[in-house]
Amino acid sequence: MNLAINIQRLQRDLEELGRIGSDLKGGVSRPSFSQADLEARAWLKKRLHEASLEIREDGAGNIFGRLRGKLEEPVILVGSHLDTVINGGRFDGTCGVVSALECLRTIQEKGIVPYYPLEVVAFTDEEGNIIGDFLGSRAFTGTLNEEILRRGQTNFGQPLQNILEGTGISLESILRAKNEAPKVLAYLELHIEQGELLDLEAVPIGLVTKITGKRLYQATFSGQVSHAGTTPMELRRDAFIGLAELAVRATRLVAAEDEDGRLTIGRVQLHPGSFSSIPGQADFTLDLRHPERENLIDLEKKIIGLAQEIAITRGLSFYYQLVDSTEPTPMSSRLLALLEEEVRNLNYPYLKLISGAGHDAQILAKITEAAMIFIPSINGLSHSPEEAIRWEDLEKGANLLLQVLVRLATSF
Amino acid sequence: MNLAINIQRLQRDLEELGRIGSDLKGGVSRPSFSQADLEARAWLKKRLHEASLEIREDGAGNIFGRLRGKLEEPVILVGSHLDTVINGGRFDGTCGVVSALECLRTIQEKGIVPYYPLEVVAFTDEEGNIIGDFLGSRAFTGTLNEEILRRGQTNFGQPLQNILEGTGISLESILRAKNEAPKVLAYLELHIEQGELLDLEAVPIGLVTKITGKRLYQATFSGQVSHAGTTPMELRRDAFIGLAELAVRATRLVAAEDEDGRLTIGRVQLHPGSFSSIPGQADFTLDLRHPERENLIDLEKKIIGLAQEIAITRGLSFYYQLVDSTEPTPMSSRLLALLEEEVRNLNYPYLKLISGAGHDAQILAKITEAAMIFIPSINGLSHSPEEAIRWEDLEKGANLLLQVLVRLATSF
Repeated sequence: MNLAINIQRLQRDLEELGRIGSDLKGGVSRPSFSQADLEARAWLKKRLHEASLEIREDGAGNIFGRLRGKLEEPVILVGSHLDTVINGGRFDGTCGVVSALECLRTIQEKGIVPYYPLEVVAFTDEEGNIIGDFLGSRAFTGTLNEEILRRGQTNFGQPLQNILEGTGISLESILRAKNEAPKVLAYLELHIEQGELLDLEAVPIGLVTKITGKRLYQATFSGQVSHAGTTPMELRRDAFIGLAELAVRATRLVAAEDEDGRLTIGRVQLHPGSFSSIPGQADFTLDLRHPERENLIDLEKKIIGLAQEIAITRGLSFYYQLVDSTEPTPMSSRLLALLEEEVRNLNYPYLKLISGAGHDAQILAKITEAAMIFIPSINGLSHSPEEAIRWEDLEKGANLLLQVLVRLATSF
Repeated sequence: MNLAINIQRLQRDLEELGRIGSDLKGGVSRPSFSQADLEARAWLKKRLHEASLEIREDGAGNIFGRLRGKLEEPVILVGSHLDTVINGGRFDGTCGVVSALECLRTIQEKGIVPYYPLEVVAFTDEEGNIIGDFLGSRAFTGTLNEEILRRGQTNFGQPLQNILEGTGISLESILRAKNEAPKVLAYLELHIEQGELLDLEAVPIGLVTKITGKRLYQATFSGQVSHAGTTPMELRRDAFIGLAELAVRATRLVAAEDEDGRLTIGRVQLHPGSFSSIPGQADFTLDLRHPERENLIDLEKKIIGLAQEIAITRGLSFYYQLVDSTEPTPMSSRLLALLEEEVRNLNYPYLKLISGAGHDAQILAKITEAAMIFIPSINGLSHSPEEAIRWEDLEKGANLLLQVLVRLATSF
């Protein structure tokens, strides 16, 4: 291999970035536009500047660093995101941004002049800490749900305006971001798997064939608050027991369907929330995912039907609201073929797999050829302080990314 | 009936008291030692003073108003509590305190000189907003769990010291309250039923034969946090699904046993509580009640066993801690006979029933003859802004209380 990235430099960058927003629980808390996120953005711009890349920031706060090509357009985009969930890890998103930077530095140092411009990109709010997932890539591709954005209520319950204050970004500028976007030839993203398949199989590289589809609901069972001591079991309209029955039966249903479905109830709030009161209301989230659209729709119908059936049986009401939705998204077959050719040239073991997590690549796939390289998450852990990688895996992933970028940028 | 209370005066008092601590959701929020509770206490003392009753407050903040008898001791206690749950109702506790006051005023006005002193009492923190239920009556009877008290952590998570600051009450004074207590001949308490039996049967008076027993647990299932999209259903160690299975199966088990058992899961908290994370930890309360000690112990064993079985099957850990426990408590058969005689004299329809809610009377029963009169809760609702009574029911209950007090105070 003549062309290779510098893993020491890449590691130093990741370690430095990982200290920004490190929290008391041993993780990283760097939600979009938090102080820590602004610091991470400044850090990235400094590094892009040092690498003599041309810096651009669009109206949604997406940061770009360009290595000029012979042509002005279309550009080859490569990157991921800098923001994290609260108490998240050091590798989710950051591996992709820093690897992209390292690839462009290497290309420059080797004196390769690309035909198409190459751009490192860090998309805003991939984690959906502000409003749903993928604010930045949705703004860039012009696929934002404007209605949700205009509601202006963030996931923290804070008005969007307050969060954006002082950042130079506004509702209007976010909606304008798509007009500033160049034509895109391809999008490539390196990311940790966030699951345990690669780690279990001890394979350093995953090539993503498809990103799963998702439906996120905010739902409520509502019944009757009453006294825990005086209300006989058969007269209760206990909202929590309705939720409990749904949780047991719906997860069983999803598991029975096939191996690819996922159902998670991650948030629950009971009202009034006193030990001596039967819950009159149970609010909860339903996160349903499946890589096949038909199965996703089918499971969705079955679960909503089941909830309605439980509500009737138990004298409850059931309400639900779709708060986020993404369709299953195949990755570009052309890029996948190129990745497979290069990973074989490099002689790295690899697997093809479906991503159960959502990524900016699924948004970019709406406007361009998009593909992803996964590297193993140790023990499959992510969105957790325990998130970890092996440097040799990252080195392989970044080298694969480099070969493919050079191929794409120097041929037509 | 020659001897009768003044329902207009009683109603006025209750309505006035009901405005103290009224909250934005249409209920009353008057937890012990809150500003509203301190106001309610001041209000009661003013009323006791106006009725020329001798006011005493013990080290636990229990308030007494004495009508002197020919003897100094033993005293006949009659009352209930002024504190409420958060967003509770206007009648739970207050009906008993204000009826007691009204009875003593009536006795005084009729020129009846009791043989034994009669005392209105308002016990501190019956609702257990500070540390478990019945702080005041437990302190008065010397049956406090000193260990729990000395932990000094309140149900709000605030140090006990902070809550007591400026009240003149301290951990030491609470523990000394039993030494200040006079000998007690009998304890009588009028209370709303907080269930729907009397209201369904359209009967104005309930005579309580027994107060149910209770076990309150704080429990936790713990599993593994992981990503909602990437973790296959069969590899999950989802703490919430463990809790959901327990909730469904344990409530079914309690309902199948007999009609008298009650099981409530009123509080649930998931960690990390993000829609895209499988809950690694589910904290919850288990409130189990049964009027028969053997059944209570039997159900307790079965439920804990079930939780442990579920934990093993689902790869979870299960922890639990008993945070409150009261044994089933029969009311005094002597007082019950007297109440039955008087309710027949008055020609009021009545039922004998078991109380599924806990009351200070079950604590007083440890040191004296104790009995309770219930009046209907409309639709059985309590611990809720919708808590309601009919004034004619309260009038009947207070008149029954009056007859029994006069019988007790004037005979030996």
